[in-house]
Order: sequence, then structure tokens, then C-alpha cells
Amino acid sequence: MSERFDLAIVGSGPAGLSAALNAKIRKKKFMIFGNKDFSSKLTSAHEINNYLGFYRKSGKELGEEFNNHLKEMDISITEEKINNIYAMGEYFALMVNEKMYEATAIILATGVQYGKLFDGEERLLGKGVGYCATCDAPLYKDKVVTIISYNKHEEAEANFISSIAAKVYYIPMYKEEVEVNSAIEIVRDTPISIEGEDKVGKLKLKDSEIDTDGIFILRDSISPGQLVPGLKIVDNHIEVDRLMSTNIPGCFAAGDVVGAPYQYIKAAGEGNIAALSAVNYIDSISKK
Amino acid sequence: MSERFDLAIVGSGPAGLSAALNAKIRKKKFMIFGNKDFSSKLTSAHEINNYLGFYRKSGKELGEEFNNHLKEMDISITEEKINNIYAMGEYFALMVNEKMYEATAIILATGVQYGKLFDGEERLLGKGVGYCATCDAPLYKDKVVTIISYNKHEEAEANFISSIAAKVYYIPMYKEEVEVNSAIEIVRDTPISIEGEDKVGKLKLKDSEIDTDGIFILRDSISPGQLVPGLKIVDNHIEVDRLMSTNIPGCFAAGDVVGAPYQYIKAAGEGNIAALSAVNYIDSISKK
Repeated sequence: MSERFDLAIVGSGPAGLSAALNAKIRKKKFMIFGNKDFSSKLTSAHEINNYLGFYRKSGKELGEEFNNHLKEMDISITEEKINNIYAMGEYFALMVNEKMYEATAIILATGVQYGKLFDGEERLLGKGVGYCATCDAPLYKDKVVTIISYNKHEEAEANFISSIAAKVYYIPMYKEEVEVNSAIEIVRDTPISIEGEDKVGKLKLKDSEIDTDGIFILRDSISPGQLVPGLKIVDNHIEVDRLMSTNIPGCFAAGDVVGAPYQYIKAAGEGNIAALSAVNYIDSISKK
Repeated sequence: MSERFDLAIVGSGPAGLSAALNAKIRKKKFMIFGNKDFSSKLTSAHEINNYLGFYRKSGKELGEEFNNHLKEMDISITEEKINNIYAMGEYFALMVNEKMYEATAIILATGVQYGKLFDGEERLLGKGVGYCATCDAPLYKDKVVTIISYNKHEEAEANFISSIAAKVYYIPMYKEEVEVNSAIEIVRDTPISIEGEDKVGKLKLKDSEIDTDGIFILRDSISPGQLVPGLKIVDNHIEVDRLMSTNIPGCFAAGDVVGAPYQYIKAAGEGNIAALSAVNYIDSISKK
């Protein structure tokens, strides 16, 4: 049986970090999943003037202040990617490739950079389209698999699946040099649409096409509706009330993922509210 | 005719200050009303650990960071007390003793320290009970006036009204030494209730009572429902939606005044949202 956490925070932008501070202060057993360099959106910001207390800081400098704050409070970020979260009633199951974590409450703070879906992606999800190569690899023994990858970190997934599948095509959507097993065929082209009647048959790209049994799309983050089945989404954002509660009891959300304005201080403020709401929820559950 | 501002921000806690940064960045013509030492609640906080980016800062230290930020952006706080705000349709009229300001939009960020009402206060409001001695002074020519004052700054009001009224009683609710005209009678007792059928007749205190025609209650802040007639209040807080809009078009609110949790970063985040919503409102009005 997995260890049960009080709270899992998904996302390490200002909303997730702010939530983590409050979880720590309120002495909850929690994890925060994300990147140690926070969000790429934060660290690439040129100059931020409307985060009260910090004048004319670059995103990178602000990130360093946040990092110091976390270090002082002994909070560390778990660099694992959550592929799916299931509401089990009493707790949430967070799927991380071959592992699972359990938490009484969750806070979704995943931002908005999950990009546009490909034509056919939603229709064929679970019918050859997937988001976790490692999880579904056994289904593709001796078959043809195509990986659309938005992050160099995913090269390990490609290498792993190439040890199972008959053939792996790898389409890098990032600029860094690609370093994968020589058995993997690297395709430098732009995916357009996923074709197939009841299951995936083909990936159409701008200048070519690939016959394939499975397509894994490895984005930096997964849209919240796909991450947490049953979550209410309105206009591409998670619907929350003023206490940052979603439609699922115990599931809270904060930051860009709940809607505009997309601002650091707004996200940090919402992370604070979400954490305190989650603490109340956890305390109410533990009293039962 | 008064000069018309785009935006008036009422309150200088984290919500009001954060709103001001955004009004400045968005190049709006605005004023922020409050105290140059911000809110007493902020500066008295012992240690704050959950304002992301600042670890283990006292309220005073955080206040200094905020002050530097404001200075760098050339924002100054107007130390005048708004007594009433009227929604005039196209604009808001903000009453400051003998002056009036006009603004297209307003943000209420007045916090929650407006205290409990006295027995009889609400019933006799406008019938001898008032919040602005200077405004209503002419009504009390040659009459007896009692001032319940929560702030040493109000001593000037007492002096002014003593030049008009026949008799002024002054009840200081603060600890500093009282320095008023010798004609004013200082009463050191605790007010309990305001008596009178259709109009004020008497103030009952713990150990005494005063026969009086008028009673001015000069608190640091006025409850939002009394400040802005028609504003929707739920459970003692201003009702807002996720964009910090109140029930009155052009009137936004942020910070403790809209509800718990009472936290700096939450207030600052909401100030950001309220300011950007106000900017959108102002731009939509100016396009008409």
C-alpha cells in the first residue's frame, strides 16, 4: 500500500509554491510536483513590476527569491510528472509512470501551457493515443510507436519503449540536440493530424506521413480535464469558487489554470487560499 | 467641476497597494487613499512566512519593502478619509469632508477593522448619528455634539466643530494624549448605546450618560455598506465574483473586506485582479 499524504500540489509556478509554504506552516504532510527551475514561463519573464514588494526584478531574479524562501523552509520539489489523477472518494491516486502516490487532498496549479490538441487527438485518446509511454508500453510489444515530444527529458521514455516496440519514430518539438538510441528514427517534421477510424492508423505531418499503431504525445503538462477525469472545465479553465474549490471534493486549483489574469501575484494569492481551503478539508476528513 | 480620475483606490493595505501598482503600469489616472504607514494591522504583524519571496519578515520590514516599491514607481498615498461614496452612473463621487473627488471606477480595499456598531447606531444613522463631523457641522450650530473618536487625527475635527456647536464632548478611544481646545470637554468613559426615539437624545456610557443632539463616530474606517450605499454585503463582507466585481458596475473590491482568509498575499493577488478588471471597465467606458 502506498504511503498516504495529506496533500499533493501539482505544479511549481507561483501558485504551487505559495500553496506549499502554507502546507508547511500548517504542518501538513505534503508533496509538490514540478520542476526545480519552477515554470519556464516564470524564469523567462523579462521584468516584473507588479509583484508587490519586488521592483524591477526579472523572472529569473524573482525565481531566485522564491527558491531561497523554499530552501529556508526546507521545502523541496519532486521532479516527477503526474500522468493521471483519480478521485477515489476518500483520497486521490496520483499516477507517476510506474508509481502511485496517495493524497487526501490535491491542489492543481499546472498553468496554461498545455498547447493546442492535434486533430483527432481527443477522438482517439485511449485508442492508440496516450500521454504516458512508460505506462502503456506493454500494449505496443512488437508494434510501431510514434512519440511526439516537447521536452528533451522525454528521450528516456523513447529509449525505454524502443526496447519493447518493433519500431519507434521520435518527433522532437524542442530545439536541443536529440540523443536517443540509434534504433529510434528521428523525424523532423510538424505533426498535423492523427488518422484512424476506431484506432490510430496514421500520423499526418506537414511534409510526410507515418503508419503507426500508437502515438504518445509528451507535453510539459497535460490539460487539467485530461489529468483529472470528471473535473469541471469552463472555457478551457478549471471552474473554482472564491475558496478555490473545484467540483470534486478535496480537489482545489489555483493560478493560471483557473483563469486570467495570468499574473504572478494573483497566482500566489490563489495558492494561499487553495492551501488554506485544503487544510480545512483535510482537518474535516481526519475528524471523521 | 471636480477633476475626473479614472480610478480611486480606497485603502492602503496589501490589496490597495497591489492595485495601485497595476493602475500605474496601465497608465491610468488614479488616486490611492489611506495612510502613509499603510495599515496598522500590517505593520504590527510579528513575523510573516507565507508571502512568497520574503522569508521571516516582520510586518514592519515587509511594509518597508512595499514602501520602496511604491517610491520607485512614484506612487504616493493621499492621506484623506473618504466618508461616503455615491454611484452616480457614469462615475463615482467620493466625499472627503468638504471636498469631492470623481472617479470612473473604484476599488474598495478597506480591510475589516471597522469594529462593532453601538446599540442604536444603525437605527439613528442620519438622525443625529453621523460619521463626518466637518460635513454635518452646520446642522449643529448652537447645539450639543458628542464625538467618539478612534484616532488622534480626528482632534482637528473636534476643534472645528467646537467653533460652531454650543458644547462639544470628546470621547477618545485611543491611548495617545488628547490635545483639543480647552472649550471641549473630554470624557474618559466607554460608550454603550445611543438613545432616542426619532432622533438622538442621549449617549449612555459605562459610568455616565450625556444629553446630546448629535453623535459623531469617527472610526479609522467605515463599514463598506455604509461607505457605499447599495453595495451588496454578505456575511459582513462585500460580495464579489472571481474578477473582484461587486454588484455595482465599476465598483470592485479586494482584500480582507471581501472575505477570509485574511492574508497579505491573498489580498495582494486580489488587488491585482481588481485593478485589471477596473482597467478593462475604464477602457470600455471611454470607448463609448
